[in-house]
Amino acid sequence: MTRFAFTVEFDGRPFMGWQRQAHGPSVQQAIEDAIFAVSGERAVIHAAGRTDAGVHGIAMRAHADIAKDMAPFRLMEALNARLRPHPIAILACEAVPDDWHARFSCVGRSYVYRIANRRAPLTWENGLVWRVIQPLDTDAMQEAAQLLVGRHDFTTFRSAHCQAESPVKTLDRLDVERSGDRLAIYAEARSFLHHQVRSMVGCLALVGMGRWSIGDLEAARDARDRAALGLNAPPDGLYFVRARYPDL
Amino acid sequence: MTRFAFTVEFDGRPFMGWQRQAHGPSVQQAIEDAIFAVSGERAVIHAAGRTDAGVHGIAMRAHADIAKDMAPFRLMEALNARLRPHPIAILACEAVPDDWHARFSCVGRSYVYRIANRRAPLTWENGLVWRVIQPLDTDAMQEAAQLLVGRHDFTTFRSAHCQAESPVKTLDRLDVERSGDRLAIYAEARSFLHHQVRSMVGCLALVGMGRWSIGDLEAARDARDRAALGLNAPPDGLYFVRARYPDL
Repeated sequence: MTRFAFTVEFDGRPFMGWQRQAHGPSVQQAIEDAIFAVSGERAVIHAAGRTDAGVHGIAMRAHADIAKDMAPFRLMEALNARLRPHPIAILACEAVPDDWHARFSCVGRSYVYRIANRRAPLTWENGLVWRVIQPLDTDAMQEAAQLLVGRHDFTTFRSAHCQAESPVKTLDRLDVERSGDRLAIYAEARSFLHHQVRSMVGCLALVGMGRWSIGDLEAARDARDRAALGLNAPPDGLYFVRARYPDL
Repeated sequence: MTRFAFTVEFDGRPFMGWQRQAHGPSVQQAIEDAIFAVSGERAVIHAAGRTDAGVHGIAMRAHADIAKDMAPFRLMEALNARLRPHPIAILACEAVPDDWHARFSCVGRSYVYRIANRRAPLTWENGLVWRVIQPLDTDAMQEAAQLLVGRHDFTTFRSAHCQAESPVKTLDRLDVERSGDRLAIYAEARSFLHHQVRSMVGCLALVGMGRWSIGDLEAARDARDRAALGLNAPPDGLYFVRARYPDL
Protein backbone atom coordinates (compact mmCIF):
# COMPACT_ATOMS: atom_id res chain seq x y z
CA MET A 1 0.00 0.00 0.00
CA THR A 2 1.45 3.34 -1.01
CA ARG A 3 0.19 6.77 0.00
CA PHE A 4 0.14 9.11 -2.98
CA ALA A 5 -0.15 12.90 -2.72
CA PHE A 6 -1.84 14.69 -5.60
CA THR A 7 -1.86 18.32 -6.69
CA VAL A 8 -5.19 18.98 -8.36
CA GLU A 9 -6.51 21.77 -10.58
CA PHE A 10 -10.25 21.86 -11.16
CA ASP A 11 -13.00 24.03 -12.59
CA GLY A 12 -15.70 24.05 -9.91
CA ARG A 13 -18.58 25.02 -12.20
CA PRO A 14 -20.01 21.55 -12.93
CA PHE A 15 -19.55 20.22 -9.39
CA MET A 16 -21.53 20.30 -6.14
CA GLY A 17 -18.17 20.94 -4.48
CA TRP A 18 -15.11 18.90 -3.62
CA GLN A 19 -16.82 16.49 -1.23
CA ARG A 20 -18.79 13.47 -2.40
CA GLN A 21 -22.54 14.18 -2.42
CA ALA A 22 -25.48 11.85 -2.89
CA HIS A 23 -27.32 14.32 -5.12
CA GLY A 24 -24.75 15.45 -7.67
CA PRO A 25 -21.24 15.28 -9.13
CA SER A 26 -18.23 16.10 -6.98
CA VAL A 27 -14.51 16.43 -7.59
CA GLN A 28 -13.86 13.73 -4.97
CA GLN A 29 -16.12 11.23 -6.71
CA ALA A 30 -14.60 11.94 -10.13
CA ILE A 31 -11.07 11.29 -8.83
CA GLU A 32 -12.12 8.23 -6.80
CA ASP A 33 -13.83 6.81 -9.90
CA ALA A 34 -10.65 7.44 -11.91
CA ILE A 35 -8.58 5.64 -9.26
CA PHE A 36 -10.99 2.70 -9.44
CA ALA A 37 -10.74 2.61 -13.23
CA VAL A 38 -6.93 2.58 -13.02
CA SER A 39 -6.37 0.29 -10.02
CA GLY A 40 -9.62 -1.58 -9.39
CA GLU A 41 -9.50 -0.18 -5.84
CA ARG A 42 -12.18 1.81 -4.03
CA ALA A 43 -9.74 4.26 -2.45
CA VAL A 44 -10.92 7.28 -0.47
CA ILE A 45 -9.29 10.60 -1.31
CA HIS A 46 -8.68 13.21 1.42
CA ALA A 47 -8.15 16.87 0.53
CA ALA A 48 -6.54 19.86 2.27
CA GLY A 49 -9.85 21.72 1.99
CA ARG A 50 -13.44 20.93 1.10
CA THR A 51 -14.47 23.59 -1.37
CA ASP A 52 -18.12 24.53 -1.96
CA ALA A 53 -20.14 24.14 -5.13
CA GLY A 54 -18.78 26.41 -7.87
CA VAL A 55 -15.43 27.06 -6.14
CA HIS A 56 -12.30 26.31 -8.16
CA GLY A 57 -8.92 24.75 -7.38
CA ILE A 58 -5.56 25.99 -8.68
CA ALA A 59 -3.43 23.54 -6.67
CA MET A 60 -5.54 21.59 -4.18
CA ARG A 61 -3.56 18.90 -2.33
CA ALA A 62 -5.09 15.49 -1.64
CA HIS A 63 -3.97 11.95 -0.86
CA ALA A 64 -5.13 8.36 -1.29
CA ASP A 65 -3.73 4.93 -0.38
CA ILE A 66 -3.38 2.58 -3.33
CA ALA A 67 -2.22 -1.05 -3.21
CA LYS A 68 -1.45 -1.45 -6.91
CA ASP A 69 2.23 -0.94 -7.60
CA MET A 70 2.53 2.11 -9.85
CA ALA A 71 5.14 4.80 -10.41
CA PRO A 72 3.73 8.21 -9.45
CA PHE A 73 4.18 9.61 -12.95
CA ARG A 74 2.36 6.68 -14.54
CA LEU A 75 -0.44 6.94 -12.01
CA MET A 76 -0.83 10.66 -12.75
CA GLU A 77 -0.96 10.04 -16.50
CA ALA A 78 -3.48 7.23 -16.13
CA LEU A 79 -5.71 9.31 -13.83
CA ASN A 80 -5.64 12.28 -16.19
CA ALA A 81 -6.65 10.02 -19.07
CA ARG A 82 -9.55 8.61 -17.01
CA LEU A 83 -10.67 12.00 -15.68
CA ARG A 84 -11.78 13.16 -19.12
CA PRO A 85 -14.08 14.88 -19.88
CA HIS A 86 -14.25 16.29 -16.34
CA PRO A 87 -12.43 19.63 -15.98
CA ILE A 88 -10.05 18.14 -13.40
CA ALA A 89 -6.29 17.76 -13.90
CA ILE A 90 -3.70 16.07 -11.71
CA LEU A 91 -0.75 18.49 -11.91
CA ALA A 92 1.63 16.46 -9.74
CA CYS A 93 1.76 13.09 -7.97
CA GLU A 94 4.29 11.76 -5.49
CA ALA A 95 4.67 8.93 -2.98
CA VAL A 96 4.57 10.25 0.59
CA PRO A 97 5.07 8.72 4.07
CA ASP A 98 2.12 6.80 5.53
CA ASP A 99 1.59 9.38 8.27
CA TRP A 100 1.36 12.31 5.84
CA HIS A 101 -2.22 13.56 5.63
CA ALA A 102 -3.41 16.15 3.09
CA ARG A 103 -5.83 17.65 5.62
CA PHE A 104 -4.32 17.04 9.06
CA SER A 105 -0.67 17.68 8.11
CA CYS A 106 -1.59 20.95 6.37
CA VAL A 107 -0.31 24.04 8.24
CA GLY A 108 -1.38 26.76 5.82
CA ARG A 109 -4.04 27.37 3.20
CA SER A 110 -4.33 30.19 0.71
CA TYR A 111 -7.16 31.40 -1.49
CA VAL A 112 -7.54 34.06 -4.13
CA TYR A 113 -10.87 35.71 -4.89
CA ARG A 114 -11.22 37.30 -8.34
CA ILE A 115 -13.53 40.20 -9.16
CA ALA A 116 -14.26 41.80 -12.54
CA ASN A 117 -15.21 45.38 -11.70
CA ARG A 118 -17.10 46.22 -14.87
CA ARG A 119 -20.53 46.90 -16.25
CA ALA A 120 -20.44 44.58 -19.27
CA PRO A 121 -21.59 40.98 -18.88
CA LEU A 122 -18.90 38.30 -18.68
CA THR A 123 -18.08 36.08 -21.65
CA TRP A 124 -15.44 33.35 -21.25
CA GLU A 125 -15.05 34.20 -17.55
CA ASN A 126 -18.68 33.48 -16.72
CA GLY A 127 -18.62 31.50 -13.44
CA LEU A 128 -14.88 32.15 -13.05
CA VAL A 129 -14.99 35.65 -11.53
CA TRP A 130 -17.53 37.74 -9.63
CA ARG A 131 -18.73 40.67 -11.71
CA VAL A 132 -19.32 43.78 -9.60
CA ILE A 133 -20.89 46.66 -11.52
CA GLN A 134 -20.45 49.44 -8.94
CA PRO A 135 -16.98 51.04 -9.00
CA LEU A 136 -14.92 49.59 -6.14
CA ASP A 137 -12.56 51.73 -4.05
CA THR A 138 -9.62 49.37 -3.76
CA ASP A 139 -7.75 51.49 -1.22
CA ALA A 140 -10.73 51.50 1.15
CA MET A 141 -11.08 47.73 0.74
CA GLN A 142 -7.40 47.17 1.50
CA GLU A 143 -7.60 49.37 4.60
CA ALA A 144 -10.73 47.55 5.80
CA ALA A 145 -9.17 44.15 5.11
CA GLN A 146 -6.44 44.84 7.65
CA LEU A 147 -9.12 44.93 10.40
CA LEU A 148 -9.71 41.23 9.75
CA VAL A 149 -6.06 40.18 9.79
CA GLY A 150 -4.92 38.59 13.05
CA ARG A 151 -6.68 36.50 15.70
CA HIS A 152 -10.44 37.15 15.84
CA ASP A 153 -13.76 35.50 16.55
CA PHE A 154 -15.05 35.17 12.97
CA THR A 155 -18.63 34.15 13.86
CA THR A 156 -20.00 36.93 11.61
CA PHE A 157 -18.12 35.48 8.63
CA ARG A 158 -19.03 31.84 9.28
CA SER A 159 -21.74 29.76 7.63
CA ALA A 160 -24.52 28.45 9.87
CA HIS A 161 -23.45 25.01 8.66
CA CYS A 162 -19.81 25.39 9.74
CA GLN A 163 -18.62 22.37 11.70
CA ALA A 164 -15.47 23.88 13.19
CA GLU A 165 -15.24 23.62 16.98
CA SER A 166 -14.24 27.24 17.50
CA PRO A 167 -15.01 30.43 15.53
CA VAL A 168 -11.66 31.87 16.61
CA LYS A 169 -9.10 31.83 13.80
CA THR A 170 -5.89 33.65 12.96
CA LEU A 171 -5.94 35.28 9.54
CA ASP A 172 -2.36 35.77 8.34
CA ARG A 173 -3.04 37.79 5.20
CA LEU A 174 -5.89 39.58 3.45
CA ASP A 175 -4.71 41.80 0.61
CA VAL A 176 -6.72 43.54 -2.09
CA GLU A 177 -4.87 44.24 -5.35
CA ARG A 178 -6.16 45.88 -8.52
CA SER A 179 -4.94 45.60 -12.11
CA GLY A 180 -7.16 47.49 -14.56
CA ASP A 181 -10.76 46.39 -13.95
CA ARG A 182 -9.62 43.23 -12.13
CA LEU A 183 -9.36 42.82 -8.36
CA ALA A 184 -7.63 39.91 -6.66
CA ILE A 185 -8.09 39.38 -2.93
CA TYR A 186 -5.46 37.12 -1.36
CA ALA A 187 -6.28 35.30 1.89
CA GLU A 188 -3.93 33.12 3.95
CA ALA A 189 -4.43 31.28 7.24
CA ARG A 190 -3.68 27.97 8.92
CA SER A 191 -7.35 27.15 8.34
CA PHE A 192 -10.60 28.90 7.47
CA LEU A 193 -14.20 28.60 8.65
CA HIS A 194 -16.91 27.52 6.21
CA HIS A 195 -17.74 30.47 3.90
CA GLN A 196 -15.16 32.67 5.66
CA VAL A 197 -13.38 33.93 2.54
CA ARG A 198 -16.62 34.57 0.63
CA SER A 199 -18.14 36.36 3.63
CA MET A 200 -15.07 38.56 4.14
CA VAL A 201 -14.96 39.38 0.41
CA GLY A 202 -18.67 40.22 0.37
CA CYS A 203 -18.25 42.72 3.21
CA LEU A 204 -15.10 44.20 1.67
CA ALA A 205 -17.08 44.73 -1.55
CA LEU A 206 -19.69 46.69 0.43
CA VAL A 207 -16.87 48.90 1.70
CA GLY A 208 -15.54 49.24 -1.85
CA MET A 209 -18.98 50.31 -3.12
CA GLY A 210 -19.24 52.91 -0.36
CA ARG A 211 -22.28 51.22 1.17
CA TRP A 212 -20.29 50.34 4.31
CA SER A 213 -17.74 52.49 6.11
CA ILE A 214 -14.60 50.89 7.46
CA GLY A 215 -16.20 51.35 10.89
CA ASP A 216 -19.20 49.30 9.71
CA LEU A 217 -16.88 46.43 8.87
CA GLU A 218 -15.24 46.66 12.29
CA ALA A 219 -18.68 46.67 13.95
CA ALA A 220 -19.73 43.60 11.94
CA ARG A 221 -16.57 41.79 13.02
CA ASP A 222 -17.11 42.69 16.67
CA ALA A 223 -20.79 41.72 16.59
CA ARG A 224 -19.77 38.02 16.37
CA ASP A 225 -23.20 37.42 14.88
CA ARG A 226 -23.98 35.89 11.47
CA ALA A 227 -26.90 38.32 11.20
CA ALA A 228 -24.35 41.18 11.06
CA LEU A 229 -22.95 39.82 7.76
CA GLY A 230 -23.53 42.31 4.95
CA LEU A 231 -23.02 40.10 1.92
CA ASN A 232 -21.71 36.64 1.10
CA ALA A 233 -19.82 36.77 -2.20
CA PRO A 234 -20.76 34.12 -4.80
CA PRO A 235 -18.51 31.06 -5.26
CA ASP A 236 -17.63 32.05 -8.85
CA GLY A 237 -14.55 34.11 -7.98
CA LEU A 238 -13.05 31.81 -5.32
CA TYR A 239 -9.98 29.65 -5.98
CA PHE A 240 -8.14 27.39 -3.53
CA VAL A 241 -4.56 28.32 -4.38
CA ARG A 242 -2.17 26.36 -2.21
CA ALA A 243 -1.80 24.09 0.82
CA ARG A 244 1.38 24.38 2.86
CA TYR A 245 3.06 21.49 4.74
CA PRO A 246 6.01 21.45 7.12
CA ASP A 247 8.21 19.31 4.85
CA LEU A 248 6.65 18.98 1.41
CA MET B 1 -29.80 57.12 -39.29
CA THR B 2 -26.87 57.01 -36.88
CA ARG B 3 -23.68 54.99 -37.29
CA PHE B 4 -22.75 53.33 -34.02
CA ALA B 5 -19.30 51.88 -33.29
CA PHE B 6 -19.17 48.92 -30.90
CA THR B 7 -16.33 47.37 -28.92
CA VAL B 8 -17.10 43.68 -28.55
CA GLU B 9 -15.73 40.93 -26.31
CA PHE B 10 -16.67 37.36 -27.22
CA ASP B 11 -15.85 33.78 -26.39
CA GLY B 12 -15.38 32.10 -29.78
CA ARG B 13 -16.01 28.54 -28.58
CA PRO B 14 -19.70 28.21 -29.50
CA PHE B 15 -19.45 30.08 -32.81
CA MET B 16 -18.55 29.19 -36.40
CA GLY B 17 -16.63 32.47 -36.39
CA TRP B 18 -17.47 36.16 -36.55
CA GLN B 19 -19.07 36.10 -39.97
CA ARG B 20 -22.66 35.00 -40.57
CA GLN B 21 -22.85 31.40 -41.79
CA ALA B 22 -25.75 29.41 -43.16
CA HIS B 23 -24.76 26.29 -41.21
CA GLY B 24 -24.18 27.50 -37.66
CA PRO B 25 -24.15 30.27 -35.09
CA SER B 26 -21.93 33.32 -35.58
CA VAL B 27 -21.08 36.39 -33.52
CA GLN B 28 -22.37 38.62 -36.34
CA GLN B 29 -25.75 36.93 -36.39
CA ALA B 30 -26.13 37.09 -32.61
CA ILE B 31 -25.45 40.84 -32.57
CA GLU B 32 -27.64 41.51 -35.63
CA ASP B 33 -30.47 39.57 -33.97
CA ALA B 34 -30.00 41.64 -30.80
CA ILE B 35 -30.15 44.86 -32.85
CA PHE B 36 -33.37 43.63 -34.45
CA ALA B 37 -34.87 42.82 -31.05
CA VAL B 38 -33.99 46.29 -29.78
CA SER B 39 -34.76 48.43 -32.85
CA GLY B 40 -36.90 46.32 -35.17
CA GLU B 41 -34.24 46.96 -37.86
CA ARG B 42 -32.33 44.40 -39.93
CA ALA B 43 -29.00 46.22 -39.67
CA VAL B 44 -25.78 44.70 -41.00
CA ILE B 45 -22.79 44.83 -38.69
CA HIS B 46 -19.27 45.27 -40.10
CA ALA B 47 -16.19 44.26 -38.09
CA ALA B 48 -12.51 45.20 -38.16
CA GLY B 49 -11.65 41.52 -38.64
CA ARG B 50 -13.47 38.31 -39.47
CA THR B 51 -12.26 35.79 -36.93
CA ASP B 52 -12.43 32.04 -37.55
CA ALA B 53 -14.43 29.43 -35.65
CA GLY B 54 -13.15 29.14 -32.08
CA VAL B 55 -11.17 32.40 -32.14
CA HIS B 56 -11.96 34.91 -29.37
CA GLY B 57 -12.34 38.68 -29.20
CA ILE B 58 -11.01 40.91 -26.43
CA ALA B 59 -11.99 44.20 -28.07
CA MET B 60 -13.22 43.68 -31.62
CA ARG B 61 -14.51 46.89 -33.25
CA ALA B 62 -17.62 46.86 -35.40
CA HIS B 63 -20.26 49.27 -36.66
CA ALA B 64 -23.90 49.32 -37.75
CA ASP B 65 -26.33 51.99 -38.99
CA ILE B 66 -29.49 52.25 -36.92
CA ALA B 67 -32.45 54.54 -37.62
CA LYS B 68 -34.07 54.31 -34.20
CA ASP B 69 -33.08 57.26 -32.02
CA MET B 70 -31.15 55.86 -29.06
CA ALA B 71 -28.40 57.15 -26.81
CA PRO B 72 -25.26 55.01 -27.23
CA PHE B 73 -25.25 53.94 -23.57
CA ARG B 74 -28.88 52.86 -23.70
CA LEU B 75 -28.29 50.96 -26.94
CA MET B 76 -25.31 49.14 -25.37
CA GLU B 77 -27.32 48.16 -22.31
CA ALA B 78 -30.25 46.95 -24.40
CA LEU B 79 -27.99 44.91 -26.68
CA ASN B 80 -26.20 43.29 -23.74
CA ALA B 81 -29.56 42.32 -22.23
CA ARG B 82 -30.66 40.79 -25.57
CA LEU B 83 -27.35 39.02 -26.20
CA ARG B 84 -27.85 36.66 -23.26
CA PRO B 85 -27.10 33.80 -23.01
CA HIS B 86 -24.51 34.18 -25.79
CA PRO B 87 -20.97 34.78 -24.46
CA ILE B 88 -20.82 38.16 -26.22
CA ALA B 89 -20.55 41.52 -24.45
CA ILE B 90 -20.67 45.04 -25.85
CA LEU B 91 -17.94 46.82 -23.86
CA ALA B 92 -18.44 50.25 -25.42
CA CYS B 93 -20.74 51.99 -27.88
CA GLU B 94 -20.44 55.44 -29.47
CA ALA B 95 -21.94 57.44 -32.32
CA VAL B 96 -19.40 57.93 -35.14
CA PRO B 97 -19.33 59.89 -38.43
CA ASP B 98 -21.12 58.29 -41.38
CA ASP B 99 -17.86 57.73 -43.25
CA TRP B 100 -16.21 55.86 -40.38
CA HIS B 101 -15.94 52.14 -41.23
CA ALA B 102 -14.86 49.50 -38.72
CA ARG B 103 -13.05 47.56 -41.45
CA PHE B 104 -11.95 50.09 -44.06
CA SER B 105 -10.97 52.86 -41.63
CA CYS B 106 -8.88 50.46 -39.53
CA VAL B 107 -5.13 51.11 -39.79
CA GLY B 108 -3.84 48.54 -37.31
CA ARG B 109 -4.86 45.20 -35.88
CA SER B 110 -3.36 43.28 -33.00
CA TYR B 111 -3.73 39.72 -31.80
CA VAL B 112 -2.43 37.72 -28.89
CA TYR B 113 -1.95 33.95 -29.03
CA ARG B 114 -1.92 32.13 -25.68
CA ILE B 115 -0.13 28.85 -25.02
CA ALA B 116 -0.14 26.71 -21.87
CA ASN B 117 3.19 24.89 -21.95
CA ARG B 118 2.34 22.00 -19.67
CA ARG B 119 1.66 18.31 -19.59
CA ALA B 120 -1.55 18.31 -17.54
CA PRO B 121 -4.88 18.60 -19.36
CA LEU B 122 -6.63 21.96 -19.25
CA THR B 123 -9.59 22.61 -16.96
CA TRP B 124 -11.33 26.01 -17.08
CA GLU B 125 -9.06 27.12 -19.94
CA ASN B 126 -10.15 24.34 -22.27
CA GLY B 127 -10.67 25.98 -25.68
CA LEU B 128 -9.13 29.23 -24.41
CA VAL B 129 -5.42 28.40 -24.79
CA TRP B 130 -3.36 25.95 -26.83
CA ARG B 131 -1.81 23.29 -24.64
CA VAL B 132 1.68 22.32 -25.85
CA ILE B 133 3.19 19.39 -23.93
CA GLN B 134 6.76 19.59 -25.25
CA PRO B 135 8.92 22.15 -23.41
CA LEU B 136 9.16 25.29 -25.54
CA ASP B 137 12.38 27.29 -25.86
CA THR B 138 11.01 30.81 -25.65
CA ASP B 139 14.29 32.51 -26.57
CA ALA B 140 14.57 30.50 -29.79
CA MET B 141 10.95 31.33 -30.63
CA GLN B 142 11.53 35.04 -30.04
CA GLU B 143 14.64 34.99 -32.23
CA ALA B 144 12.80 33.13 -35.00
CA ALA B 145 9.82 35.49 -34.76
CA GLN B 146 12.00 38.43 -35.74
CA LEU B 147 12.56 36.78 -39.15
CA LEU B 148 8.87 37.30 -39.85
CA VAL B 149 8.73 40.96 -38.79
CA GLY B 150 8.82 43.43 -41.68
CA ARG B 151 7.56 43.31 -45.27
CA HIS B 152 7.38 39.76 -46.65
CA ASP B 153 5.46 37.54 -49.01
CA PHE B 154 3.53 35.47 -46.45
CA THR B 155 2.17 32.86 -48.90
CA THR B 156 3.51 30.05 -46.68
CA PHE B 157 1.47 31.38 -43.76
CA ARG B 158 -1.74 31.96 -45.70
CA SER B 159 -4.83 29.76 -45.90
CA ALA B 160 -5.74 28.34 -49.29
CA HIS B 161 -9.09 30.12 -48.79
CA CYS B 162 -7.53 33.54 -48.25
CA GLN B 163 -9.23 36.20 -50.36
CA ALA B 164 -6.62 38.94 -50.01
CA GLU B 165 -5.34 40.31 -53.34
CA SER B 166 -1.69 40.13 -52.37
CA PRO B 167 0.25 37.81 -50.04
CA VAL B 168 2.69 40.65 -49.28
CA LYS B 169 2.11 42.17 -45.85
CA THR B 170 4.12 44.20 -43.37
CA LEU B 171 4.26 42.63 -39.92
CA ASP B 172 5.01 45.34 -37.36
CA ARG B 173 5.47 43.18 -34.29
CA LEU B 174 5.79 39.51 -33.33
CA ASP B 175 6.95 39.01 -29.74
CA VAL B 176 7.04 35.85 -27.65
CA GLU B 177 6.81 36.35 -23.89
CA ARG B 178 6.79 33.74 -21.13
CA SER B 179 5.43 33.91 -17.59
CA GLY B 180 5.70 30.59 -15.75
CA ASP B 181 4.19 27.91 -17.98
CA ARG B 182 2.30 30.50 -20.04
CA LEU B 183 3.42 31.94 -23.38
CA ALA B 184 1.83 34.95 -25.03
CA ILE B 185 2.69 35.79 -28.64
CA TYR B 186 1.83 39.36 -29.65
CA ALA B 187 1.26 40.15 -33.34
CA GLU B 188 0.59 43.59 -34.85
CA ALA B 189 0.11 44.69 -38.45
CA ARG B 190 -2.06 46.94 -40.58
CA SER B 191 -3.82 43.76 -41.71
CA PHE B 192 -3.28 40.01 -41.71
CA LEU B 193 -3.86 37.21 -44.20
CA HIS B 194 -6.35 34.43 -43.41
CA HIS B 195 -4.76 32.04 -40.86
CA GLN B 196 -1.57 34.11 -40.80
CA VAL B 197 -1.24 34.41 -37.02
CA ARG B 198 -2.08 30.75 -36.39
CA SER B 199 0.34 29.64 -39.11
CA MET B 200 3.16 31.81 -37.76
CA VAL B 201 2.50 30.56 -34.22
CA GLY B 202 2.44 26.93 -35.35
CA CYS B 203 5.87 27.28 -36.98
CA LEU B 204 7.28 29.18 -34.00
CA ALA B 205 6.09 26.30 -31.78
CA LEU B 206 8.06 23.87 -33.97
CA VAL B 207 11.13 26.02 -33.38
CA GLY B 208 10.36 26.09 -29.64
CA MET B 209 10.10 22.28 -29.55
CA GLY B 210 13.45 21.98 -31.35
CA ARG B 211 11.84 20.24 -34.34
CA TRP B 212 12.70 23.20 -36.57
CA SER B 213 15.86 25.28 -36.57
CA ILE B 214 15.62 29.02 -36.99
CA GLY B 215 16.97 28.42 -40.50
CA ASP B 216 14.07 26.07 -41.20
CA LEU B 217 11.66 28.88 -40.38
CA GLU B 218 13.52 31.24 -42.69
CA ALA B 219 13.43 28.64 -45.48
CA ALA B 220 9.68 28.14 -44.96
CA ARG B 221 9.16 31.89 -45.21
CA ASP B 222 11.24 32.15 -48.37
CA ALA B 223 9.55 29.14 -49.99
CA ARG B 224 6.37 31.23 -50.45
CA ASP B 225 4.50 27.95 -50.63
CA ARG B 226 1.67 26.79 -48.38
CA ALA B 227 3.13 23.27 -48.56
CA ALA B 228 6.17 24.56 -46.64
CA LEU B 229 4.01 25.34 -43.62
CA GLY B 230 5.03 23.19 -40.66
CA LEU B 231 1.99 23.52 -38.43
CA ASN B 232 -1.16 25.61 -38.20
CA ALA B 233 -1.89 26.32 -34.53
CA PRO B 234 -5.46 25.64 -33.35
CA PRO B 235 -7.90 28.54 -32.96
CA ASP B 236 -8.20 27.99 -29.18
CA GLY B 237 -5.37 30.32 -28.17
CA LEU B 238 -6.08 33.18 -30.59
CA TYR B 239 -7.61 36.48 -29.44
CA PHE B 240 -8.32 39.58 -31.53
CA VAL B 241 -7.04 42.25 -29.14
CA ARG B 242 -7.45 45.67 -30.70
CA ALA B 243 -8.25 47.62 -33.86
CA ARG B 244 -6.53 50.97 -34.35
CA TYR B 245 -8.05 53.99 -36.17
CA PRO B 246 -6.54 57.33 -37.13
CA ASP B 247 -8.84 59.39 -34.87
CA LEU B 248 -10.81 57.11 -32.54
